[in-house]
Amino acid sequence: MLQFNIEKPKDEIRSYLQEKIDNLTKPKGSLGVLEDLAMQIGWVQQTLEPKLTHPCHIVFAGDHGIAAEGVSPSPQEVTYQMVANFWAGGAGINFLARQHNIDLHIVDSGVNFDFKPTDPIIDKKIRKSTNNYLHEAAMTREEMELAIERGAECAQACFDKGCNIIGFGEMGITNTSSSALWMSYLANIPLADCVGAGCDDSGKIIEHKYRVLKQSQENYKGDGSVEDIIRYFGGFEMVMAVGAMLKAAELKMIILIDGFIMTNCLLAASKLNSNVLHYAVFGHQGDEIGHKLILRHLDARPILHLSFRLGEGTGALCAYPIVDSSVRMINEMNSFKKIQVTKYF
Amino acid sequence: MLQFNIEKPKDEIRSYLQEKIDNLTKPKGSLGVLEDLAMQIGWVQQTLEPKLTHPCHIVFAGDHGIAAEGVSPSPQEVTYQMVANFWAGGAGINFLARQHNIDLHIVDSGVNFDFKPTDPIIDKKIRKSTNNYLHEAAMTREEMELAIERGAECAQACFDKGCNIIGFGEMGITNTSSSALWMSYLANIPLADCVGAGCDDSGKIIEHKYRVLKQSQENYKGDGSVEDIIRYFGGFEMVMAVGAMLKAAELKMIILIDGFIMTNCLLAASKLNSNVLHYAVFGHQGDEIGHKLILRHLDARPILHLSFRLGEGTGALCAYPIVDSSVRMINEMNSFKKIQVTKYF
Repeated sequence: MLQFNIEKPKDEIRSYLQEKIDNLTKPKGSLGVLEDLAMQIGWVQQTLEPKLTHPCHIVFAGDHGIAAEGVSPSPQEVTYQMVANFWAGGAGINFLARQHNIDLHIVDSGVNFDFKPTDPIIDKKIRKSTNNYLHEAAMTREEMELAIERGAECAQACFDKGCNIIGFGEMGITNTSSSALWMSYLANIPLADCVGAGCDDSGKIIEHKYRVLKQSQENYKGDGSVEDIIRYFGGFEMVMAVGAMLKAAELKMIILIDGFIMTNCLLAASKLNSNVLHYAVFGHQGDEIGHKLILRHLDARPILHLSFRLGEGTGALCAYPIVDSSVRMINEMNSFKKIQVTKYF
Repeated sequence: MLQFNIEKPKDEIRSYLQEKIDNLTKPKGSLGVLEDLAMQIGWVQQTLEPKLTHPCHIVFAGDHGIAAEGVSPSPQEVTYQMVANFWAGGAGINFLARQHNIDLHIVDSGVNFDFKPTDPIIDKKIRKSTNNYLHEAAMTREEMELAIERGAECAQACFDKGCNIIGFGEMGITNTSSSALWMSYLANIPLADCVGAGCDDSGKIIEHKYRVLKQSQENYKGDGSVEDIIRYFGGFEMVMAVGAMLKAAELKMIILIDGFIMTNCLLAASKLNSNVLHYAVFGHQGDEIGHKLILRHLDARPILHLSFRLGEGTGALCAYPIVDSSVRMINEMNSFKKIQVTKYF
């Protein structure tokens, strides 16, 4: 399997960053989260003048065999329809990408639809939908490794355009089910605490969903390794995101983490290489029941709490201007040395 | 005293707004706070296609006689020094205003300094600093009314430039003390729950601050009316913000509320005319101890929680892109009628 060489940034610079931040014309610590973000980004970039360049966002789309079990109120066709909505510019992620000047990429990781070669979508398709993990592995070991590689290629392509901050999102009907299973295994949390309503707001699906996923766990006979869990219960779009996150960290890019599903992908990535976490900025905590538990497991403090449960990366992109603010703060604010202000704190 | 004719927006449009929001291509309710904001702004503007035009932000600056009692670790001179920092472009509020293309206005409400006529500051000065309310009223009734009027003029000037969304912030050493007293009287909350650390992070000031404010309360012999409380314990910059908020609401502008001090100004404005609340968007909840209590009193749900305690309007401006997103959402997203996506929820 593709290996990633992810470095932990050197700590020497941290005290210089702290000194610079503490000498900006404000009471010490009074810009809270902006100060934390400026510290992290300066540390990752190993500079007192961090910059964000050519921000990109990738939406990975894929379908899931488990959809046959009725674990979502939405039919599978919504996945390809929403992909068409992405390229038409009319989905949630589109207006946010336009607002924040973010270069948006839509990737077919394994959508159950035959797109035309002329359709404006990046073709990284592994196969049209995973298998139904109630009965068999969602994908083979080879397919999983291929998805990791193709995800890495997507991150590399953004890097090659000059990008040093990248968001990830997804579209895939039933992928909250895969996420619930991943987190249950990877963070050792009882399945009942991992299963949420997904996009269903009627409360009718959740019990059935839990039973199907519990049975899937009981039917699973694999070795319980990270690699086996993500292939057995994966979505192609999720495994691709794992590969993309690992590659982004190897390339020292800041990774903007979205909601429940992308946090699960980061969780999986971190179990393959824990250094990926140094590069992650958590954009949003949604209402999906398991999300708070994974965030706690990762010791993460998300920037926003806006009750989103849409996916696509909408929570990550809403947080982008705040991350941008942190960099502007450290570069643009006057210091007490530069302007005559009595240090007040 | 200047009266404001603030209308409650008509409710007829709400069901049409809800229908439009529910038919955007996303699961119902899945953009959380953005949906709430789009509803509020469409309702205030009485349109299904709300727009934000020429966003402005006003920082009111003033000094306080109570500073003589040592209720802040910062000397009073910081107020005028920071005003100079604002016009030099090097303070917290500056990089945020530049980032979000917000027209920034700095107003001298009553700074204890003689600015030159050529200094780039809007001169609305009532007087150089209020009196010390430990011993006497901070300002006269006439000064309070003048401050309300001058605040209203500031909001009107922004409106005249085409502005329909306005943020307010402040600079005034010791104004968390005035705020603590205002909220204690106006929201009927025990003073001990209203007094926080302000910009002090050493924990040394707070007990002394409480004793001075408690004694100020005991010395107060006024009639307890809203008008009397805000003049007795006021800052000029705070009363000016009250007038500006009331005028902004009369002009049907969206008002971006910042942190502890500006929330207190809105509280005072709402006790003079409760309809002002329909126009308020709460940007940020800081860590100042009393802030959560006033927000609860106002039944408000702030957009951000970023642990800011700087003032100036930094929390309000950080929330601006999210408010902007809500308007883009309702205008730019495709509806299920327009594009072929199965309604998924």
